[in-house]
Amino acid sequence: MTDTVVSSATKEVVIGFDRPFCVIGERINPTGRKLLAAEMAAGDYSRVKSDALAQVAAGAHMLDVNAGIPLADEPRILAESIQLVQSLTDTPLSIDSSIVAALEAGLAVYKGKALVNSVTGEEERLESVLPLVKKYGAAVVAISNDETGISEDPDVRFEVAKKIVHRAADFGISHADIVVDPLVMPIGALGNAGKAAFSLIRRLREELKVNTTCGASNISFGLPNRHGLNQAFLSMAIGAGMTSAIMNPLHIEEMTGIWGADVLMGTDAHCAHWIKRFREPAAEGEAGARGRRERTGRRGGGGGGTPEAANA
Amino acid sequence: MTDTVVSSATKEVVIGFDRPFCVIGERINPTGRKLLAAEMAAGDYSRVKSDALAQVAAGAHMLDVNAGIPLADEPRILAESIQLVQSLTDTPLSIDSSIVAALEAGLAVYKGKALVNSVTGEEERLESVLPLVKKYGAAVVAISNDETGISEDPDVRFEVAKKIVHRAADFGISHADIVVDPLVMPIGALGNAGKAAFSLIRRLREELKVNTTCGASNISFGLPNRHGLNQAFLSMAIGAGMTSAIMNPLHIEEMTGIWGADVLMGTDAHCAHWIKRFREPAAEGEAGARGRRERTGRRGGGGGGTPEAANA
Repeated sequence: MTDTVVSSATKEVVIGFDRPFCVIGERINPTGRKLLAAEMAAGDYSRVKSDALAQVAAGAHMLDVNAGIPLADEPRILAESIQLVQSLTDTPLSIDSSIVAALEAGLAVYKGKALVNSVTGEEERLESVLPLVKKYGAAVVAISNDETGISEDPDVRFEVAKKIVHRAADFGISHADIVVDPLVMPIGALGNAGKAAFSLIRRLREELKVNTTCGASNISFGLPNRHGLNQAFLSMAIGAGMTSAIMNPLHIEEMTGIWGADVLMGTDAHCAHWIKRFREPAAEGEAGARGRRERTGRRGGGGGGTPEAANA
Repeated sequence: MTDTVVSSATKEVVIGFDRPFCVIGERINPTGRKLLAAEMAAGDYSRVKSDALAQVAAGAHMLDVNAGIPLADEPRILAESIQLVQSLTDTPLSIDSSIVAALEAGLAVYKGKALVNSVTGEEERLESVLPLVKKYGAAVVAISNDETGISEDPDVRFEVAKKIVHRAADFGISHADIVVDPLVMPIGALGNAGKAAFSLIRRLREELKVNTTCGASNISFGLPNRHGLNQAFLSMAIGAGMTSAIMNPLHIEEMTGIWGADVLMGTDAHCAHWIKRFREPAAEGEAGARGRRERTGRRGGGGGGTPEAANA
């Protein structure tokens, strides 16, 4: 039973075995979003604001904040974005950058215990990121690649994760503050990517006793009906023991797969969250919603989903 | 690696580890369908015919045929239904009755190797059904309850399954010809029904080396958005090792959960089936459908689903 506790000034979120799955909203990220990048570079955070609120409304438990804009002052923009988002919502944040100075700028203004996204097994990253994680008392996403790149061999990826956990211990960081990303590959290119991910997730949980996360949409890269495939992947990954994902919460398919898995893993007590999300609006005044026999037909409403945000 | 081979006169279907999941269409069953029951009792098999064709078109690999109509001549009706369905499609059948004389009447007219649905761990059922299974060289669904009823303890259900497998061996029936139904409970009533089912499925596969099946919709009984919950359950059960289900194939949610799990378990080679089901119709003439980068938005079409059949 490993609990990774993150927090804002007023709210704690636990990523943990036997906890509801933790959805980390990925939308506040200018990578591939030209309009958002231009706005953020110009100091216009209106879309950061709307993305934050929409993701929380859709069910995100945490929000990832990234300000990776070429030629821009990333440390300043990241820090400003974090301060803005923390003024809007009590949702804990993941501070996302490949630039150490930006991570530090974000950590310096962050209120609470953040999740640092991320460190890899590369020597230079370990030596620069882990001291920051320790200094600010944060948790950290550990990505299981190193100087040799991303291995196709899940055993090698497991060893990289193990190395990061051991190195973090040298810095005084508990394994409970490390959330390992086993690196999910596109199954259209690598046919064993699903089974490899599930067995790696299981090993990370059982042997290293760490929580896990991933970029959930990688699995479906290049394939049709990506949301349907992401949905199956998320349900199955939760069944294998995955405890969080960095993902777009604005799609009802993926969220339904997660909420259903929470019910089936027994972490949605009395199915209360599922019932709240999906009960018929007309029946909300009735007692005993759970006792009704037949409720067929797919529902995209019930507060569970919001329309897909434009890829602005 | 256990393969359960069933067949019609001209087609073989294999339920097996490392095979695509086997969907057994449940619609030809007058239980709870008054109109169908009245029609079948009166010798009108038009709906049996349309249900058979619709389920095969929707992706069923086998069809269950049940003729349980109170006060009707079940052996005759079951035999006639089987003959009709076998004249329409080469899909292998599951012969479904609680009346041994009806099972025998069905087996007597069946062309190929049928799946008998079902035997339980009750002494009287073992002694009456297993000799029939052996006589006709069939396979059989083994339901893990006995004289004491359905135990809430998965260990007890495992032991009942083990007893059936051993008893079948005494009759000369291989474990490869037994498909165990671990009995999935409604999670709205029993909060650990999901985890219990997954661990039982895993044990049945690893320890008894048998294929498994279940009535997939039981899990969601009494809850809203049943199809969404069934979908998560099916994906996760396949991840745990389940190899078939008796279910309604006319819902795109459940089928998407199954086809996605096949992709992720590596049993849909090169994602060929997934791509065929979900690629954009407009792009069908193009080469390299798999190479296109973004394909967002849920699709219910592509041949994957048909509208929900009326519960006639």
